[in-house]
Amino acid sequence: MTRTPTRAVPPEQSAREEELIARVQASFDSCRDPRLKELMRALVKHLHAFLREVRLTEEEWHKAIEFLTAVGHITDDKRQEFILLSDTLGASMQTIAINNEVCGNATEATVFGPFFVEGSPRIEPGGDMSFGAAGEPCWVEGTVSDIDGNPVPGARIEVWEADEDGFYDVQYGDGRVAARAHLFSEADGGYRFWGVTPTPYPIPCDGPVGKMLEATGRSPMRASHLHFMVEAPGCRTLVTHIFVRGDELLGSDTVFGVKESLVKDFERRPPGTPTPDGRVVDGTWTKVRFDIVLAPADVRE
Amino acid sequence: MTRTPTRAVPPEQSAREEELIARVQASFDSCRDPRLKELMRALVKHLHAFLREVRLTEEEWHKAIEFLTAVGHITDDKRQEFILLSDTLGASMQTIAINNEVCGNATEATVFGPFFVEGSPRIEPGGDMSFGAAGEPCWVEGTVSDIDGNPVPGARIEVWEADEDGFYDVQYGDGRVAARAHLFSEADGGYRFWGVTPTPYPIPCDGPVGKMLEATGRSPMRASHLHFMVEAPGCRTLVTHIFVRGDELLGSDTVFGVKESLVKDFERRPPGTPTPDGRVVDGTWTKVRFDIVLAPADVRE
Ligand SMILES: [Fe+2]
Ligand SMILES: [Fe+2]
Repeated sequence: MTRTPTRAVPPEQSAREEELIARVQASFDSCRDPRLKELMRALVKHLHAFLREVRLTEEEWHKAIEFLTAVGHITDDKRQEFILLSDTLGASMQTIAINNEVCGNATEATVFGPFFVEGSPRIEPGGDMSFGAAGEPCWVEGTVSDIDGNPVPGARIEVWEADEDGFYDVQYGDGRVAARAHLFSEADGGYRFWGVTPTPYPIPCDGPVGKMLEATGRSPMRASHLHFMVEAPGCRTLVTHIFVRGDELLGSDTVFGVKESLVKDFERRPPGTPTPDGRVVDGTWTKVRFDIVLAPADVRE
Repeated sequence: MTRTPTRAVPPEQSAREEELIARVQASFDSCRDPRLKELMRALVKHLHAFLREVRLTEEEWHKAIEFLTAVGHITDDKRQEFILLSDTLGASMQTIAINNEVCGNATEATVFGPFFVEGSPRIEPGGDMSFGAAGEPCWVEGTVSDIDGNPVPGARIEVWEADEDGFYDVQYGDGRVAARAHLFSEADGGYRFWGVTPTPYPIPCDGPVGKMLEATGRSPMRASHLHFMVEAPGCRTLVTHIFVRGDELLGSDTVFGVKESLVKDFERRPPGTPTPDGRVVDGTWTKVRFDIVLAPADVRE
């Protein structure tokens, strides 16, 4: 990182700045909620550390106020620009990391994203969750187990993804339900279903967060992925994705959702190749395996 | 400060969290503006340090998003809740401290506030800037000099304040101009004018920032003050206030604007006491001295 050279801050000046921090922190002394007090004091500490480290100019402060104002004004019931901001600064992913601590070989979590919808249709094992969504067929199979290797039968597996044009059903605004479903793991913990091969899509980038990405030379694209949420009694709920090995966006996913352990081989089969369930597919199809390991529920979340 | 005891974060977990920070920071590598790159990288560093230190829960993250959304939605052309937030977290005052470094005995700066208006009426030395604003008359006098003690003649001195009910003229919304003016220092650097004795007032507290203050046991009140902005060629522009010694709010000013060096004696005179300019005042009046020392303009701002 190139740092702008700055001359040292004189001790008398540092003392003034530190005294201010102490005063702001002390203003929360009467807060009756100890957790809220802790949060506010820590927020002040880190916010002021940022201001002091970069020696924020008054002009930059004004620009920051303008930026946040714009983020606030584009945000409505359907568009949540503050979440986009949190996502693109990695704050969402860090919060998920903090709340899904490493636990043996439990599958890693990643961002939830804005496109989950309650009440998805149920499919049977081997069923098709695409419901007509455009895309290359993709056979997904795997098992659900606990960290001791025991199969977890009856786990509720929610899956959702964008179609080949990069849109989720809800983005069409016509009420369609497609490329989302839930199913349950079987007695041996196994599961399998048809979906579509994931393709990349941009986050909404016509607002201030998009401008920030552009100004900083970043792409608005998310790496191709398929969302999973897996719930089972006694287990920590897992919210995650799988990614496509070879996707050129793996290294620049704009919300930092990619983890190496979640990158999977989507093996492409030529037209006419028999499918695992004996279907005849018109054109190519892909096949991916994703074995899911759930942490116990009593792990700190 | 009472800290919630937290168990140590395992090394493997720490490694994951640090790796994420490195990835987010690296995403700004292509930013062509070196200052913007520096700001974004530092922001990420301190934001993630905050999240990790407090081990932010997902529920708290949701509450933070909701809070910022509410701040955005109450903000419009007239109400700037993001500035209030910055003010009440001491971030505004810290930015001012950073940009007005200690320089000899130069007068300390403080927050600008939202009530300055361009184009105030000019008054002559000894004139009355209250223009009918309700309040106890207050005689203000002093000198403007540089840090070497030389008088600064012709300095433009803007002054503005709330009336005795705690309102600025612009808050009445009826177009009145009162309790604001500008004047110039004389050949010997001296200045003098009539205003009103400052009284305390609350910042707007019917929005999310007000709720934050209430939830954390803080007062929305600002200590009584009189605003100054002093400009002179070759000098660093000074934006400051003077405060009233004895005001019980000095220790809890909600935007952290108070500095000991800016607390002044407002000496109250009984009714009938002759004023410095031979006026007859109906009732009590006060008198305050404020000698202003300007830093040179080439000090880092
Ligand atoms: Fe997604
Ligand atoms: Fe004020």
